[in-house]
Amino acid sequence: MKEIIAVIRMNKMNQTKKALADAGFSSITAKECLGRGKGIVDMELLQGAEKGFEEAISQLGQSSRLIPKRAILMIVPDKSVKKAVKTIVSVNRTGKSGDGKIFVMPSIDSVSVRTGENGDATLDDV
Amino acid sequence: MKEIIAVIRMNKMNQTKKALADAGFSSITAKECLGRGKGIVDMELLQGAEKGFEEAISQLGQSSRLIPKRAILMIVPDKSVKKAVKTIVSVNRTGKSGDGKIFVMPSIDSVSVRTGENGDATLDDV
Amino acid sequence: MKEIIAVIRMNKMNQTKKALADAGFSSITAKECLGRGKGIVDMELLQGAEKGFEEAISQLGQSSRLIPKRAILMIVPDKSVKKAVKTIVSVNRTGKSGDGKIFVMPSIDSVSVRTGENGDATLDDV
Repeated sequence: MKEIIAVIRMNKMNQTKKALADAGFSSITAKECLGRGKGIVDMELLQGAEKGFEEAISQLGQSSRLIPKRAILMIVPDKSVKKAVKTIVSVNRTGKSGDGKIFVMPSIDSVSVRTGENGDATLDDV
Repeated sequence: MKEIIAVIRMNKMNQTKKALADAGFSSITAKECLGRGKGIVDMELLQGAEKGFEEAISQLGQSSRLIPKRAILMIVPDKSVKKAVKTIVSVNRTGKSGDGKIFVMPSIDSVSVRTGENGDATLDDV
Repeated sequence: MKEIIAVIRMNKMNQTKKALADAGFSSITAKECLGRGKGIVDMELLQGAEKGFEEAISQLGQSSRLIPKRAILMIVPDKSVKKAVKTIVSVNRTGKSGDGKIFVMPSIDSVSVRTGENGDATLDDV
């Protein structure tokens, strides 16, 4: 099984949650966070600010300022990693800086507190 | 060493913290998060709502609504994984949907910022 | 590639962010969290409280009380792990309890939502 951490735009959270649920991934954990990627404050951002993108605006002024984001954490069976990544990308790709990153990490086990079950049986069967 | 992430009910945080400390695990990190498991909104939840369980109530209406949870992050020596999982389960199992999940992930190293020590020496010896 | 999680003092966040950016690590995610290490409430803490250290004060009274901290999450190429850890330590070591911990975890892949690129190409080249 694998852990998937997706850091996405705040305003994409609901759509992402819905897309994941529609794809069969109902077990997710969401957190507020601050983040930034490799981008530097440049014309693209300035143009974004002109068009009113919240993130572009919040990035102006200080190049190292962090931006409010949402983090989604999911544990999925190995066979479902590609589908989960595809689903998240499909909803979150706008082509602008700030679309986010998806990290895939190894996971050893998952335990259901209620039933005591462990392993893939505790995960969404997608 | 292993990373343990436990996603539990908000109102179990203090009890869980205490149980872990009593078991020798004093080094923990806690975060607010939102989450949901595989469960669907069903009779069990409706009955829960009648009994006033906050989580059941907050789940009614929208099946994909996320529920406020607490996440605990711990890094423990390999030998202590079972004990940590048992301790968390013992406090958090109510038998109702929403008891939470515990994930076990590989961890390569831990470094104490103050002393520069690394490895198991920086972890609780449980 | 590796995941680095650093749990540090709240008031070291800006300095740490800046030091990491100066070292070439601009892609980070930051979260609020609560935490505590192995330390027990002792004279060192009492002295800290006298000197007005917020953390020392907040720890007095209840030995299992958690302390507001900041967590930084970074995914870095294997070759950059040492530099990232060194950079974080250099800014955060005060020699007092509560300096924090840095955890290194394996990471399998990183995907840029915007470009679809994956692997080290999506990470800061430090």
